[in-house]
Amino acid sequence: MIIVFKPTATEDDIDHLSDRLRELGLKTQISTGEERTIIGVIGDDRILEHQPLSVFPGVESVTSILAPWKLVSREFQQHNTVVQVDDVAIGGKRIAVIAGPCAVEKLEVTVGIAHEVKAAGAMLLRGGAYKPRTSPYSFQGLGREGLDFLAEAKKQTGLPVVSEILDPRDTDMFLEKANIIQIGARNMQNFELLKEVGAYDKPVLLKRGLSATIKEFLLSAEYIISRGNKNVMLCERGIRTFETHYRNTLDLSAIPALKELSHLPVIVDPSHATGKWNLVAPLAKAAIAAGADGLLIEVHSNPECALCDGEESLKPHRFKDLMIELEKIAGAVDREL
Amino acid sequence: MIIVFKPTATEDDIDHLSDRLRELGLKTQISTGEERTIIGVIGDDRILEHQPLSVFPGVESVTSILAPWKLVSREFQQHNTVVQVDDVAIGGKRIAVIAGPCAVEKLEVTVGIAHEVKAAGAMLLRGGAYKPRTSPYSFQGLGREGLDFLAEAKKQTGLPVVSEILDPRDTDMFLEKANIIQIGARNMQNFELLKEVGAYDKPVLLKRGLSATIKEFLLSAEYIISRGNKNVMLCERGIRTFETHYRNTLDLSAIPALKELSHLPVIVDPSHATGKWNLVAPLAKAAIAAGADGLLIEVHSNPECALCDGEESLKPHRFKDLMIELEKIAGAVDREL
Amino acid sequence: MIIVFKPTATEDDIDHLSDRLRELGLKTQISTGEERTIIGVIGDDRILEHQPLSVFPGVESVTSILAPWKLVSREFQQHNTVVQVDDVAIGGKRIAVIAGPCAVEKLEVTVGIAHEVKAAGAMLLRGGAYKPRTSPYSFQGLGREGLDFLAEAKKQTGLPVVSEILDPRDTDMFLEKANIIQIGARNMQNFELLKEVGAYDKPVLLKRGLSATIKEFLLSAEYIISRGNKNVMLCERGIRTFETHYRNTLDLSAIPALKELSHLPVIVDPSHATGKWNLVAPLAKAAIAAGADGLLIEVHSNPECALCDGEESLKPHRFKDLMIELEKIAGAVDREL
Amino acid sequence: MIIVFKPTATEDDIDHLSDRLRELGLKTQISTGEERTIIGVIGDDRILEHQPLSVFPGVESVTSILAPWKLVSREFQQHNTVVQVDDVAIGGKRIAVIAGPCAVEKLEVTVGIAHEVKAAGAMLLRGGAYKPRTSPYSFQGLGREGLDFLAEAKKQTGLPVVSEILDPRDTDMFLEKANIIQIGARNMQNFELLKEVGAYDKPVLLKRGLSATIKEFLLSAEYIISRGNKNVMLCERGIRTFETHYRNTLDLSAIPALKELSHLPVIVDPSHATGKWNLVAPLAKAAIAAGADGLLIEVHSNPECALCDGEESLKPHRFKDLMIELEKIAGAVDREL
Repeated sequence: MIIVFKPTATEDDIDHLSDRLRELGLKTQISTGEERTIIGVIGDDRILEHQPLSVFPGVESVTSILAPWKLVSREFQQHNTVVQVDDVAIGGKRIAVIAGPCAVEKLEVTVGIAHEVKAAGAMLLRGGAYKPRTSPYSFQGLGREGLDFLAEAKKQTGLPVVSEILDPRDTDMFLEKANIIQIGARNMQNFELLKEVGAYDKPVLLKRGLSATIKEFLLSAEYIISRGNKNVMLCERGIRTFETHYRNTLDLSAIPALKELSHLPVIVDPSHATGKWNLVAPLAKAAIAAGADGLLIEVHSNPECALCDGEESLKPHRFKDLMIELEKIAGAVDREL
Repeated sequence: MIIVFKPTATEDDIDHLSDRLRELGLKTQISTGEERTIIGVIGDDRILEHQPLSVFPGVESVTSILAPWKLVSREFQQHNTVVQVDDVAIGGKRIAVIAGPCAVEKLEVTVGIAHEVKAAGAMLLRGGAYKPRTSPYSFQGLGREGLDFLAEAKKQTGLPVVSEILDPRDTDMFLEKANIIQIGARNMQNFELLKEVGAYDKPVLLKRGLSATIKEFLLSAEYIISRGNKNVMLCERGIRTFETHYRNTLDLSAIPALKELSHLPVIVDPSHATGKWNLVAPLAKAAIAAGADGLLIEVHSNPECALCDGEESLKPHRFKDLMIELEKIAGAVDREL
Repeated sequence: MIIVFKPTATEDDIDHLSDRLRELGLKTQISTGEERTIIGVIGDDRILEHQPLSVFPGVESVTSILAPWKLVSREFQQHNTVVQVDDVAIGGKRIAVIAGPCAVEKLEVTVGIAHEVKAAGAMLLRGGAYKPRTSPYSFQGLGREGLDFLAEAKKQTGLPVVSEILDPRDTDMFLEKANIIQIGARNMQNFELLKEVGAYDKPVLLKRGLSATIKEFLLSAEYIISRGNKNVMLCERGIRTFETHYRNTLDLSAIPALKELSHLPVIVDPSHATGKWNLVAPLAKAAIAAGADGLLIEVHSNPECALCDGEESLKPHRFKDLMIELEKIAGAVDREL
Repeated sequence: MIIVFKPTATEDDIDHLSDRLRELGLKTQISTGEERTIIGVIGDDRILEHQPLSVFPGVESVTSILAPWKLVSREFQQHNTVVQVDDVAIGGKRIAVIAGPCAVEKLEVTVGIAHEVKAAGAMLLRGGAYKPRTSPYSFQGLGREGLDFLAEAKKQTGLPVVSEILDPRDTDMFLEKANIIQIGARNMQNFELLKEVGAYDKPVLLKRGLSATIKEFLLSAEYIISRGNKNVMLCERGIRTFETHYRNTLDLSAIPALKELSHLPVIVDPSHATGKWNLVAPLAKAAIAAGADGLLIEVHSNPECALCDGEESLKPHRFKDLMIELEKIAGAVDREL
């Protein structure tokens, strides 16, 4: 922590803050420059992270030096985390493609899509049973029945299932019926939910919030890991910007940035990011080229009648074509599909 | 709903979509222009809000015409909603000032601040018992004990109490101990929590999400009201933008915009928006001048030692001075304090 | 300047950078903490502002301590700058209201509006002769003839004239015909234009760019002042955010922030910020309450037929009503209108 | 154009606007729905683009249907534009890599870098002679001498030269000495400069503004083409968002979006977008995978001493490695390098 004083700060101001820092058990080093006095705090200054040092008299600015997270960091663990879900390893050389409908609708549709995405090479099945919808008048998902349909699809295809939890009271059900629990973008800072899923070792796919910084994203992952659950995957799914031509702005710079700062696998969801099916293929390819460990792609056999996000869903034959193209990109960056 | 076709759309494309609309029970009107064909959907087209019409062949764009909300709208209720909390009316001529510490810490500090803000003219007491913190290592609030301290402060001062709920499993406790339940910015789209507080008639202070549009904000309010709870107040608390000089960018244009679109009271929180105590006073005054119905202001007797957000807290004497200035502004816009 | 090294940095890394700093003539102070080594640069480290220190081996982060501007800062000049334009003083106790049409259209319309805004109490006349339009097919302004119409309006009403320059080749014409030269938001970082207007002492109204930070805004003002022209006024006119309900998001926090950092007058333009005439009055009042030194307001006698931005223009009678309301707010914050 | 009336609109309101539309020579079609009346304007309604229809009494919203641009659109020209610069074709099957230092510094350094990037496979040389710097105290470029150094580098290597123009008064010099004139992000809406370069047939590389939408970007290109210059290339270089971990957020969704809407070549600049050299390679690969026609990459032989943007510059050996990786990606998407 670096504390810079205003040119008008008095010696009393500097002593007053120094005393407080010593009270907190910290060592300090004072530099008196020509224009400003600076205090450097030595040692683990994380306890200062949320101390309101900037309100002390004479203080101009306070700058943190250490990253506020620990367990998610590359410094803490240098090798990549590989999350094992049944016999699928996420975060290794092979890229994990998770595909399926936005929302689970009917049993036969769900099972049908599962068979099709499997045939095309997908390794996991996605599907929403509980849907967080902007409007209370939109389809809210089938709930428990939706999870049952996914479980049935898994039984028939062997594909492990990813589904989104909305309510901490549903944890037991998800532990039983899903293979990966998804925390959606709108709940990235629903800390009670993070604590809840942190209490088990069930794999968690944590989506980045619409306006979450890289730092906040990693701190939300830290919530889960600090409760004991190390099986966390990060998912970039577009951030909110001024641009309205697509639903959100997919931030692919986050891939190398997250891989540098953290050891966790990074998945990319081009479907939700763009909200337009015809942008999914180029961005899926770009994500692999930039180093993503996996993709989350919406596939629907009849997008025109999908109850949720049909605009961004690929038809199965387009998904199949995409998988062929992705394989080439994977090869070009020394990965497998 | 207005559907515009591409110049390359065929008659089949137009018929195919027209058939689908008729299937859904909607009347249509087709305009064939020189460059484009347009279908206008007549009647209540809200059922189309989440139909993926843009994936139909030949469609260029789909534009919604009706606002997607109903119960929160001025069209639905022309007069202002006034939320009654004990003997305090929020949304009427008198401006409601809600003040207190960010987080509840010790009983005597909480009660002390309550007495001071009351003496300065505040009408309600705020205080966080459960704190949504970006880092798992930050102070997470006293929990149930914090609510008890607030209840004690209310007993001694008579000030009704506003506190934030984080977990739907805590509803009973909040119904018993708080007078207004706050839904924080990070939970504005925690729809399970919205549904939960919508099931009672306890007043709810709904904060705008960091990246929530006016439209999404009103739809979250609609979630609560559509479940039966009409006692909803909207709170603008700053949005996330590229500017880093303040924590968030307070969006005061939202005040007249929300008052035009909706009948609900609008409260402004300049403390969280700016994160800097010395910006609170000018923005509090601006909020009243722009038509806000109330203010949420952080006050702490010893900001240097506050466990949360000390940077933005006013000392009691500064809050007292501010109340005197606010009274003048209120008078200038024909309101009372 | 504070340079933080990675935990993996070697002594060689630290020596290598220390040498470079000494080469540049700077004194350094090295702190060796438990997790990180830190170098503090003492003295005027502005010469480091654009040195790529972060590419040196082992460097984790580089943080600037001194503000990068000098002449615009409160530190440099503690008293408020008051810009004198004929007999109007901008930046003093009296609030300067600048009103008029977005674009100059016809002579009689321009002169008519000038008379009306003067009657309502405006102190200066605004009007665009050269219009920066997003589309090449939109009305681009009358050009030189527009400046002549404004000059005629000044002759008849005595109101000094504000008009926007787009091209450095037009400087002479603006020096002759305008009383304040406006640099528009899109040209805030057109540095050649800033240098050009910096070479004279003609007052300049510098608008904040759509995505300009407070820091960049002040540095653009510094461009002008560093060339010799001290008569600079800052104008907040809304920034670009994700919100689409209004054209831009008016950032009123910028008023107290700019007044704290700088001695220059701060003007607010609620018309361009919102793009909606019915939001202009509440935000104009809010701006005064927050401490603005002036307002820029669009007024048009027939908004329905305005060639530019009719949506946001007030009719003269509404402007007159607004002036009465503004006077009350001004009084409440101890200013005059 | 679709005009929607409020439920409270009167017949007079509807007649009044209809009359205005007829005055402007437009045909209208009126739909009277259950909740709203709608007017559809038939024919080329671009003349309405900047008519303030929303201020007419009773109007709720106005929605444009036609894209506001013409000459840049795929509708206008279905085949891809290929810009020819000497013997380099940009926009065809071969991907154009433009590399070089941010700013031109010394002759021998410039020529040296030119030789190195050529040896690695770059097809064009970039280098700034006039630098738009945020601070007036930063290195502003060598000016005319810098252009001479670039010309010399071209003479020695044969690489055509891209350099940025800042001032319309420098056009003649750029026509003579540069092979592609770059319009930088800060000048994307410097319309006088756009008009100026539109008057010749010299190729123009137009960078997207920091907060420019896809729509505004294309309209700026339309400015140039509508003046007669068809040799325009679009360059995505990152937009400004809330994320501060990188300098800007590279918007790779813009690649397929621009290619769909327009026939112009799309270049990507990962160096300026991220501001960090170690993010350049993954994002360069992603850009090619997403369909970019070219890349703009900063290369400097001694980034530690670069006078501008050393943080984001690749050393020549890293650039060479990147070219080898890019070739694989190009092959995977059926392109050549």
